[in-house]
Amino acid sequence: MREIPLRDVHITDAFWTARQTLMTDVTIPYMERILRDMVPDAEPSHALQNFRIACGEEQGAFHGMIFQDSDVAKWLESAAYSLALKPDAELRRRVDEVVALIGRCQQPDGYLNTYFTVKEPENRWKNLLECHELYCAGHMLEAAAALHETAGMDGLLEVAVRLADHICDRFEREEGIPGHQEIEIGLLRLYRATGRARYRDMALRFLNLRGQDPDWFARHTPAHPGVHYGGYDISPEDTVYNQSDVPVRAQTRARGHAVRQLYMLTAMADAAYETGDTGMLEACERVFENITGTQMYVTGAVGASAYHESFTVPYDLPDSRGYGETCASVAMAFFARQMLKNRADGQYADLLELELYNAVLAGMQLDGCRFFYVNPLQLDLRLAGRVPGYEHVLPRRPGWYRCACCPPNLARLIASLGAYLWAEDADTVYCHLLIGSEAMTSHGRIRLDSGYPWEGRAEVTVTDGGTFTLAVHIPAHAQTCVFTVNGERVVPEEKNGYGYLWRVWQPGDRLGITFDMPVRRIYADPRVRDCAGRVALARGPLVYCLEDADHAVPVLSIVLPGQAEVQPCREIPGLPSEWVGLRTEGLAEETDGPLYGTQPPVRTPCRVTAIPYFAWANRQLGNMTVWIRETDTGHT
Amino acid sequence: MREIPLRDVHITDAFWTARQTLMTDVTIPYMERILRDMVPDAEPSHALQNFRIACGEEQGAFHGMIFQDSDVAKWLESAAYSLALKPDAELRRRVDEVVALIGRCQQPDGYLNTYFTVKEPENRWKNLLECHELYCAGHMLEAAAALHETAGMDGLLEVAVRLADHICDRFEREEGIPGHQEIEIGLLRLYRATGRARYRDMALRFLNLRGQDPDWFARHTPAHPGVHYGGYDISPEDTVYNQSDVPVRAQTRARGHAVRQLYMLTAMADAAYETGDTGMLEACERVFENITGTQMYVTGAVGASAYHESFTVPYDLPDSRGYGETCASVAMAFFARQMLKNRADGQYADLLELELYNAVLAGMQLDGCRFFYVNPLQLDLRLAGRVPGYEHVLPRRPGWYRCACCPPNLARLIASLGAYLWAEDADTVYCHLLIGSEAMTSHGRIRLDSGYPWEGRAEVTVTDGGTFTLAVHIPAHAQTCVFTVNGERVVPEEKNGYGYLWRVWQPGDRLGITFDMPVRRIYADPRVRDCAGRVALARGPLVYCLEDADHAVPVLSIVLPGQAEVQPCREIPGLPSEWVGLRTEGLAEETDGPLYGTQPPVRTPCRVTAIPYFAWANRQLGNMTVWIRETDTGHT
Repeated sequence: MREIPLRDVHITDAFWTARQTLMTDVTIPYMERILRDMVPDAEPSHALQNFRIACGEEQGAFHGMIFQDSDVAKWLESAAYSLALKPDAELRRRVDEVVALIGRCQQPDGYLNTYFTVKEPENRWKNLLECHELYCAGHMLEAAAALHETAGMDGLLEVAVRLADHICDRFEREEGIPGHQEIEIGLLRLYRATGRARYRDMALRFLNLRGQDPDWFARHTPAHPGVHYGGYDISPEDTVYNQSDVPVRAQTRARGHAVRQLYMLTAMADAAYETGDTGMLEACERVFENITGTQMYVTGAVGASAYHESFTVPYDLPDSRGYGETCASVAMAFFARQMLKNRADGQYADLLELELYNAVLAGMQLDGCRFFYVNPLQLDLRLAGRVPGYEHVLPRRPGWYRCACCPPNLARLIASLGAYLWAEDADTVYCHLLIGSEAMTSHGRIRLDSGYPWEGRAEVTVTDGGTFTLAVHIPAHAQTCVFTVNGERVVPEEKNGYGYLWRVWQPGDRLGITFDMPVRRIYADPRVRDCAGRVALARGPLVYCLEDADHAVPVLSIVLPGQAEVQPCREIPGLPSEWVGLRTEGLAEETDGPLYGTQPPVRTPCRVTAIPYFAWANRQLGNMTVWIRETDTGHT
Repeated sequence: MREIPLRDVHITDAFWTARQTLMTDVTIPYMERILRDMVPDAEPSHALQNFRIACGEEQGAFHGMIFQDSDVAKWLESAAYSLALKPDAELRRRVDEVVALIGRCQQPDGYLNTYFTVKEPENRWKNLLECHELYCAGHMLEAAAALHETAGMDGLLEVAVRLADHICDRFEREEGIPGHQEIEIGLLRLYRATGRARYRDMALRFLNLRGQDPDWFARHTPAHPGVHYGGYDISPEDTVYNQSDVPVRAQTRARGHAVRQLYMLTAMADAAYETGDTGMLEACERVFENITGTQMYVTGAVGASAYHESFTVPYDLPDSRGYGETCASVAMAFFARQMLKNRADGQYADLLELELYNAVLAGMQLDGCRFFYVNPLQLDLRLAGRVPGYEHVLPRRPGWYRCACCPPNLARLIASLGAYLWAEDADTVYCHLLIGSEAMTSHGRIRLDSGYPWEGRAEVTVTDGGTFTLAVHIPAHAQTCVFTVNGERVVPEEKNGYGYLWRVWQPGDRLGITFDMPVRRIYADPRVRDCAGRVALARGPLVYCLEDADHAVPVLSIVLPGQAEVQPCREIPGLPSEWVGLRTEGLAEETDGPLYGTQPPVRTPCRVTAIPYFAWANRQLGNMTVWIRETDTGHT
């Protein structure tokens, strides 16, 4: 199977076109202004300044996180996708300028990292646990591959090849384990961009070494005062934190730092695709099942613990003080994409859909300029950001972060979304997501029109005709899916969440897919303590939430009768009029008695409006909840 | 109103006699062995060794917390009460020995503190914020007063007078604010023991200075590296932590470190009693209302946040990761006792009862040798002590703590319980608690026999007769209370939770009090998030809980039908056979589906047994919960 690459896919879908336009016109330019220290309200990034200092064009000290370079790389990668979406000569010119600046910082031996070049040239490669040199390099390689693939710009590719060769020269000989996985992803992408197997093999070596010697970091981490990630120390003994306690093929559960875990899985799934390594793929499948079966929020958010931004234990998914880093959901999408390259399996496409429409999108303000790092499923204004244990939970998206990993991760995912939609193998074209788009396949142009996420209908038009199978993902929530060809009912073969239809397609043939999108009441395994006795509302791919903005009563006091009918509605104040909300009658619980009494709280009928979760915290400051207490009438 | 002092009260009640015997025979001797470093499994206390080093009788370094001396003082205070309960010539001798040792450590100017004498004599009184010199002194004064009042032993009183004079000499002249309130309590007790107004006035000065100048600590706290309380730093700027931001009479809410807050309130209520200061008393009343109305667990536990062992915001009472330090509940009992000296008001007696039978008692193993510092209302074995945010929650009581404040606090409260029961003024004898006891009042001997806490009946026998009013507290949970005199129904005047009966009592007259003790379903204000949709079960003064030990299903999966009848029962395996448990039929919820699905969990009938909360964690290791999810049939 091969993905239809970004340059051959054009998104036409109203919903995602709007998000992508936001990326090209607002978010990516905003990120650039941040990197150039031009946003008055944001703390200066210093990221580009560090490069100017590193090549001697400016005087000064290094500023920012030890991985500040990666912000520039992730912006370049985003800019590459932006250029694919919307040609922009001025942006090309500025990208070239930045690439040239980076090139001037590269050391004669290929080394590239402004922190060490400016501050500690003698300590290069001495502390892989904490120093993120391989992490920054991985992002640089990704950016180089993206500029090459989607914008035909090869300046950074030359830098990346020199950098990758430098890394290979060093780590083909001696042992090295990346403290934060990412280089593996970058090397695999660079391998595909250049065809040079050395980079693939270096990625495999990094993966294969990991966990073979659990004491490796303890033996190879020098004392290095001053290098901390955002305030906490990483102990070389904490091998669970970066998943280096167990060899990659023996991994069974998601543990430790969520983004590290998921970047590793992304690389493992990609490596399995490139090599056919079934042991590697089976480990990915096991951990995927562990995450989605025990450690994921209903929105797709993962990494429930603020402590070390980490996975925790099964069913520990606190709703108002969870973490659910935006980057972790972006990484879940990366991981699902790589799994889909290995096998068209609906569980991966469903997860991708869940992340995109919910946890990922919630990370960004509707205006494209403000971002959540932390994504709670309940916002309790009395607690968020105020009470110990809730310090990390914010009621509004800030404009930028000192540790700015999330905004560019969102940007590079959304801007490159086209690459996630289509794939093909010898005789089948796969459509993984019902996102309106046109793809240029080996069977010619194929178009998908979709009413998603608001309506359960899509239509695939085969422009040029041909004899092949169309395989369309049927979302797991679509209980009754009707397929038609040119309006006539057909029954495709259904397998692993895809409908397969072989046919001699005539030019202009239309494959219609329609399904109901009833409002769903979702129940969690009752071992998820904060969800017991509660429901979440969903419709189609969207999980919904309640916000104070739409209610006359405090949303955290609302109880839903088990049998109340919940209806779709439009025209929610403050949101685009075509967006579908949900409406029902609920009960607000309150007491005018003492803190504890023998009378149950009094319930007063109230109107209830739910909005898509991704749109929360875009209107007035208020409480929010995804999970709603339910009265018992729905129960058996 | 005056309390009937400990020496004039004899507890006869089966329930509390057993607890007190545990104190005299097990807990207080165990504490002594701890202080003497004689318990093999416990970390050495060094507390008595520090004194031997301070007076030059042994070589070595100071060990332990900076307030390690207070462990000795609290043991001496407990031993004083033990001697009142049970004469013991050997214990008297050992107390005398320890008192003499303390005396030899006292400096010529009256100063007494082994940490500073041994380690930093030049830094005496330089850091009131962190160094606990006044705190330790307060406990020494309490111990001296206790030995004087209850055991007629005045050796420590002489030491205490010299120490108190030294403190007065210093702090009558210069300003000083205690970093941890306690000296105020000690000075007021010493004032009563000696009649010397200077000590009362010094206590008032400490209270009155507090909060007048919120920057006082910031200006008067030198850098003093190495002095930390159990791992976290106290900032001199965090004036809320020790309630020094607002003058005492302007306090409205409980904030900051719970024990500091409650020791301050205890001293304030005592000071109001001694001086008639209505502004002081009104502040106590306001904060009492704030605590009991918004910040207290249903068991009486307070100080919900592990961060700084502190009060938090209204209704933030997490059940499985709360704090609820045993000392804070002991201090709630202290506070309630002092409020009762000011006014016979049922709300204070009810609180005292709640604390004694629930939060306080839960702090101790039934064997008297193991203790909880932290008292959660739910124990989730997957999380407790394992997952970040739950580090402080233990599933079993440990034998001792490095910071050993709680065990001796429990001991001194339980051993001196007699002093909490009776009071009198000109023409009324008050009975605050229905605990079987005999009191020697100015109207002769009065006896109370009680079936409490298992049965709702009590009988007061007036041994000698006389013309006076008997005022008996009617517990708030007793909805229908019937009074009789010698078996004939009488109707007392009910006022503020007390039944008042004036009468010419004949010798042997019996006042009977009977009331139903139905099982109560208790509902919390739904703003207490972890209690919404849940009930707690209670009967009489006892709050109940479910433990895995009594169940075939995991207790955290149990749901109670709203209308299921809950019946008292006896003979719970592993608990004394006369103790009353509760039994009903419930439903266990589980799912065999995915983490999230559209089917509600399946419910299977199960037998449910509840035990008194104070008895939890005395049998097998398991989950526990006070709050139980309830199906909705009980709701209107």
